[in-house]
Amino acid sequence: MTAMLDPPAARGPYGRADLQRLLAPRSVALVGASANPASLGGRTLANLASFPGPLYPVNERHAELAGRRCYPSVAALPEAPDLVVLAVPAAAVAGVAAQAAARGAGALVVLASGYAETGEAAGQAAQAALAELARTRGLRVVGPNCVGLASRPAGLHAAFAEFSPSVLAAGRRIGLVSQSGALGMGLSHAAEHGLSISHVLTCGNSCDVDVADCVAWLAEDPDCDAIALAFEGLADAGRLAQAARLAAQHGKPIAACKLGQSAAGRAAAAFHSACPTGTPADWQALCADGGIVPVTRIEALMDTAAFLAKAQRLHAAGAQTPLAADVPAPPAADVPAPPVPAPPVTVPGLAVLSGSGGTGILAVDAAERHGLATPQPAEATVACLRALLPPFGAPRNPCDLTAQVSRDPASLLGCAEALLADPCFGALLLPWGRAQPLALLASLDALAARYRKPLLLAWMSQRLDGPGLAAISALLHTALFRSLDDACAALAASGLRGALSTREMPGA
Amino acid sequence: MTAMLDPPAARGPYGRADLQRLLAPRSVALVGASANPASLGGRTLANLASFPGPLYPVNERHAELAGRRCYPSVAALPEAPDLVVLAVPAAAVAGVAAQAAARGAGALVVLASGYAETGEAAGQAAQAALAELARTRGLRVVGPNCVGLASRPAGLHAAFAEFSPSVLAAGRRIGLVSQSGALGMGLSHAAEHGLSISHVLTCGNSCDVDVADCVAWLAEDPDCDAIALAFEGLADAGRLAQAARLAAQHGKPIAACKLGQSAAGRAAAAFHSACPTGTPADWQALCADGGIVPVTRIEALMDTAAFLAKAQRLHAAGAQTPLAADVPAPPAADVPAPPVPAPPVTVPGLAVLSGSGGTGILAVDAAERHGLATPQPAEATVACLRALLPPFGAPRNPCDLTAQVSRDPASLLGCAEALLADPCFGALLLPWGRAQPLALLASLDALAARYRKPLLLAWMSQRLDGPGLAAISALLHTALFRSLDDACAALAASGLRGALSTREMPGA
Repeated sequence: MTAMLDPPAARGPYGRADLQRLLAPRSVALVGASANPASLGGRTLANLASFPGPLYPVNERHAELAGRRCYPSVAALPEAPDLVVLAVPAAAVAGVAAQAAARGAGALVVLASGYAETGEAAGQAAQAALAELARTRGLRVVGPNCVGLASRPAGLHAAFAEFSPSVLAAGRRIGLVSQSGALGMGLSHAAEHGLSISHVLTCGNSCDVDVADCVAWLAEDPDCDAIALAFEGLADAGRLAQAARLAAQHGKPIAACKLGQSAAGRAAAAFHSACPTGTPADWQALCADGGIVPVTRIEALMDTAAFLAKAQRLHAAGAQTPLAADVPAPPAADVPAPPVPAPPVTVPGLAVLSGSGGTGILAVDAAERHGLATPQPAEATVACLRALLPPFGAPRNPCDLTAQVSRDPASLLGCAEALLADPCFGALLLPWGRAQPLALLASLDALAARYRKPLLLAWMSQRLDGPGLAAISALLHTALFRSLDDACAALAASGLRGALSTREMPGA
Repeated sequence: MTAMLDPPAARGPYGRADLQRLLAPRSVALVGASANPASLGGRTLANLASFPGPLYPVNERHAELAGRRCYPSVAALPEAPDLVVLAVPAAAVAGVAAQAAARGAGALVVLASGYAETGEAAGQAAQAALAELARTRGLRVVGPNCVGLASRPAGLHAAFAEFSPSVLAAGRRIGLVSQSGALGMGLSHAAEHGLSISHVLTCGNSCDVDVADCVAWLAEDPDCDAIALAFEGLADAGRLAQAARLAAQHGKPIAACKLGQSAAGRAAAAFHSACPTGTPADWQALCADGGIVPVTRIEALMDTAAFLAKAQRLHAAGAQTPLAADVPAPPAADVPAPPVPAPPVTVPGLAVLSGSGGTGILAVDAAERHGLATPQPAEATVACLRALLPPFGAPRNPCDLTAQVSRDPASLLGCAEALLADPCFGALLLPWGRAQPLALLASLDALAARYRKPLLLAWMSQRLDGPGLAAISALLHTALFRSLDDACAALAASGLRGALSTREMPGA
């Protein structure tokens, strides 16, 4: 289907000024606002209710909706709205869009389906007309064929999808960008077990604003610390590379899951968003170029982004090992390039500390699957561990505290510190299966900060939203995963990869 | 450490009669019962409180505990107890075990650590003495270094670990066997989101009863439909092969996660349960020999076992495609071998049906990662899908219902039936992101039964224990996974693997 669309003229990502009226609007109009709470217009109206600025429902059949004055048309609005959300059928979109442009609107969100994703000429032409309107009138258009977007800093939930509420906790706020709306909605539910989600931006067919533009916005947004990205294809892959470099310059790591990595997936994408998907090699190159951390399993995307946000804090505080976002700015042409630093002589590995021998073994098995070294600690560390462990514990890597951990949390902290203090190790993974006192968690988190090495907790209970998980998510330096493999994959794919790779271990 | 232990004499798995007093006891004594609810003895006493038969706390410092008469010693008990649980320090175990044998006990569960897992001669000798007691006195011993066991049919929770309660729903009851106690506890929490768990049997150092014996018990237990197994090593791998064949004969599929697959993991196992771990090739051979479905990610073990229990029902009802448990009995020597059946001409693939284009693409990406074919449907099926879908839906594989699915669940059922009726497909995977009416779930489940093809739902929301999940788990023929990759891995590793492999697709 894709071949039938003309590629748009190359442009860089939209800047802050371009997207201000879309993503930080002062006023919003909803065309197709409805009294039926099950309809798209009704659901979107309910979601928009908390918008702090003027909200204008538009529907010629109502004088009032949800306690607000309702307007018969966009033309009749009392001011030029920053953002107009179109919850109308595809056949009515072009007319409303033209009215909105004439009324001076700054941006449109088009929810309707029936455009390029149909693979039919009429839908493609209608989408091309929307793109042309965006280009000629300087309007920003999100969609068509999308579920909308939300920005918690802006108090904006301009979507018919149910995005979960989130606490905005500085240092770990994830901006989520998803081409697929349903996927974005499901991923946003990570907020319910404690992740801090600042934005949910879905793009659908991306006739104008695409995921690259959203990434660029988040790169410069002071209310976002890391970016989670899921997308199928791009009209212009170079634009995403530019946006990713912008994010790196602002210290915002990106975790990204690329849909359509298989032949069957690429074929399906042509029927869905109709954007060019590129090859797996294209994707690898883009990740390498932009410092993007690739995530294979979509289920791991949000936890990986949260990990990167926390690891970035350690890095910003002066950690020795580079992280994903540490892409150096290219030197100016008239400045001599700095000398290439020598590779480190000793290379830190991954330490594992558990209260169960079985989960410790599983952790090092997972580390090996993802190419992470799990070396043995230095002799002084072993002595320190031995002093803290019961006689049947294992003063090695993986370190097995045995069930003693439940009676003596201090031994857990002591062993964690011994392992973190050992230059052998660059990160500590703790298989974790039960709620623990907040004071213990805070002490562990403080160790991560002191030694500037990331702590990863892997939740080993099938009580997946169980007690204590939100408290772990809320930590500033300790990341939570619900899978050992996901934790190891994230660590391996992050900028710590080189430092922790088995392939670079001396003698390994 | 392992080399220092003499290998025990080869024996087959224990039979029903051997394990009756251990796993279906009429009476239980707890030595080391305690009034301190945080101690091992106190926690085990609380867990045993629901045992329906006589329960005898033993502690010379108390006349009564938890409202029950407390006895000063095993010798003083009013009857020979079937099962004696030893919640005493390692130093006291040998004396209590000898007393229990003298009093005519049938079985011991030894919780204490400090045995072969220490790698030290004293612990190894103490463990060997327990094994010798088991052998010479005909006592069955579980442990040492274990958290205990639970059988819901027997009303027995003889463990200091917190195993979750479970509804026992016929047709999908999972018996869980774990060498590691902490791991068994965490896995058992799957009951909290609706899985039906009949047994949690942990073995620890396995000086006598090991995971093979537990698998053999479950193979013949009418209250268990499938077995989930996690273990590190075995004194005698042949015994597990025998137990697995017994399970196959009884139509009980086994999903198994083998700990210690990496070099680091094998080294750690030597410090933990001190059983020989074998090589990855040993494990593959054992799976092939015993019809065991291997599971790489521990987090997927329980959902995979639940899937196999449900798939087994379809198979027992007469499905065309073989499943894991369908291991033919070896022909008797005097009967000529049946002719080898010709390979099938057409090979069924995996169909994907979603309400979101993005999740459908992710599903076929995951299928390809696990070697599953996702062919296009027959022309008649396409016509049927087209009639049910909106113009912007995708009448193909993956089939995209679009957001229409939330307004018109009947179209979901129609498309599911069209795909299941197509001989092209052997299974149907549905990415799933929200609670649905019970009637819709029941109708879907009935389709799986009618077409005798498994349905797999992959939960795409990060609300991991969210509303509606227990209702899906409770279905008889539809399996729930919390990951597309886990669903595809389970299908690929099950007995359907051959039938669904891309490598056998004509023209693929």
